Amino acid sequence: MKIDTTPFRIVPGDPVDLEQRPTRIAPPHADDAEYERELAERVGKISRLQRDLYADNRHALLVVFQAMDAAGKDGAIRHVFSGVNPQGCQVAAFKQPSAEELDHDFLWRTVRHLPERGRIGIFNRSYYEEVLVVRVHPQYLDGQRLPDVPRDLGALWSARYRSIRDHEAHLGRNGTTVIKFYLHLSPDEQRERFLARLDDPDKNWKFSGGDVEERAHWPAYRQAYAEAIRETSTDEAPWFVVPADDKRTARLIVAEAVKDTLAALTLVRPSADPEELAAYRARLAPADQD
Amino acid sequence: MKIDTTPFRIVPGDPVDLEQRPTRIAPPHADDAEYERELAERVGKISRLQRDLYADNRHALLVVFQAMDAAGKDGAIRHVFSGVNPQGCQVAAFKQPSAEELDHDFLWRTVRHLPERGRIGIFNRSYYEEVLVVRVHPQYLDGQRLPDVPRDLGALWSARYRSIRDHEAHLGRNGTTVIKFYLHLSPDEQRERFLARLDDPDKNWKFSGGDVEERAHWPAYRQAYAEAIRETSTDEAPWFVVPADDKRTARLIVAEAVKDTLAALTLVRPSADPEELAAYRARLAPADQD
Repeated sequence: MKIDTTPFRIVPGDPVDLEQRPTRIAPPHADDAEYERELAERVGKISRLQRDLYADNRHALLVVFQAMDAAGKDGAIRHVFSGVNPQGCQVAAFKQPSAEELDHDFLWRTVRHLPERGRIGIFNRSYYEEVLVVRVHPQYLDGQRLPDVPRDLGALWSARYRSIRDHEAHLGRNGTTVIKFYLHLSPDEQRERFLARLDDPDKNWKFSGGDVEERAHWPAYRQAYAEAIRETSTDEAPWFVVPADDKRTARLIVAEAVKDTLAALTLVRPSADPEELAAYRARLAPADQD
Repeated sequence: MKIDTTPFRIVPGDPVDLEQRPTRIAPPHADDAEYERELAERVGKISRLQRDLYADNRHALLVVFQAMDAAGKDGAIRHVFSGVNPQGCQVAAFKQPSAEELDHDFLWRTVRHLPERGRIGIFNRSYYEEVLVVRVHPQYLDGQRLPDVPRDLGALWSARYRSIRDHEAHLGRNGTTVIKFYLHLSPDEQRERFLARLDDPDKNWKFSGGDVEERAHWPAYRQAYAEAIRETSTDEAPWFVVPADDKRTARLIVAEAVKDTLAALTLVRPSADPEELAAYRARLAPADQD
């Protein structure tokens, strides 16, 4: 089965009208069995590519997930990356910043969690929160104690987009490829999922009253996401706007894009010198004969 | 006594010809006593400004020291910052990178040591080593395992200058002012200082044979420093090329530039509400009367 991710990839210069972009598409899979099979195939490929990434030890991959609550970030991470060796894959989730983190620039706390060469790093939320939730709630800026907050906050967000673009370009030049997923959920589907969290005792723990409050800011979030995605989607660090009203469709698209990104890297297993190997073999052989 | 630091500050676009720039100037101080007095005055001002920086808690200052061996980095740091409350001042010295550090981009290991708001951070060597010692010894690049090393290494250094400029601009926008000192030493003065380290038992511990080896690369270092300084001196994050053949002159210039940089920040002590203070006073008063 082929999955074409190009309709979801934001090319620099593309308009990003989230009301026009679908939150639901015809699923690429015919039924549950096909979904399971197709996802497993991709997870297997990602797992094998990650071993090559680890052996090559020159590249890293940073996968950023951003979305409204209940859009399926946790599930996408669990289903797409569960097959990958945890020694080569690490997840960092970013919630409210600590006092120490607020005392540094807004990229600082995430830099510490960047993946090492040979690894996949996953950011469940990220530095993008700084142009999303902080934009929707600019009073959070007070806690950041910035010395020069412009009266027109538009200049502040523009400066942050620039910092993010520069940062991701620097990472790219130094071996870390960045890809970013926005799981695009409709408000109606979010309501259904919130109701399920309230009704299903197994899901109660995921429910938070604050999440419902945030629904009131949906148009502001939509605008913040659209602008952030438009301003920071580059050829080297693209955004994918993934229809997320169907979780399985979203996971297949994410898995496909991750697999393609890894496959596009030039990964070389360090080749050992056959003569050197023969010499070691000879050194080991006598002991076996003892 | 006035010390004019502008001749040592590199304005963007200035040529940086280190053979033309002096390593020794007529000292601003007439004698030892005047040096001690003038330095102490500046250290005192820096110390008071640092308290304001701490109370204001919006800005940070990052002071970068780079130089050839024996140029006086350690001494400058000790003499200029010893009067400052260590709670508001931290030094990070960067030597050979660890394996974990090599597995990240070249800025990563220094980001972790950036000063928090309200503090002065001092880098004794820094990310600039990546365009200095690594440029003079490009074989060190092998250990960095970069995926795409261009055949023309000039493109690599240019990309690193850009990463550094972007990084310092981002820090500036987010409240951390950066100033950078190159302690400009002559090869002859370095030889004298190395001989002193060999002859004086108190200084023996500072001598390293490797430092002498590096002298052979002096012209390459001079070129690397000149290009790095030219490419990364900006209005917001300037380089100062400080004549360093006389340690006292160098320290006075450094102290003056640090003081001026701090004094140029708009530092506001948070002013308490008099009514609020009166209310607390009233709450505390009865207990005292008990």
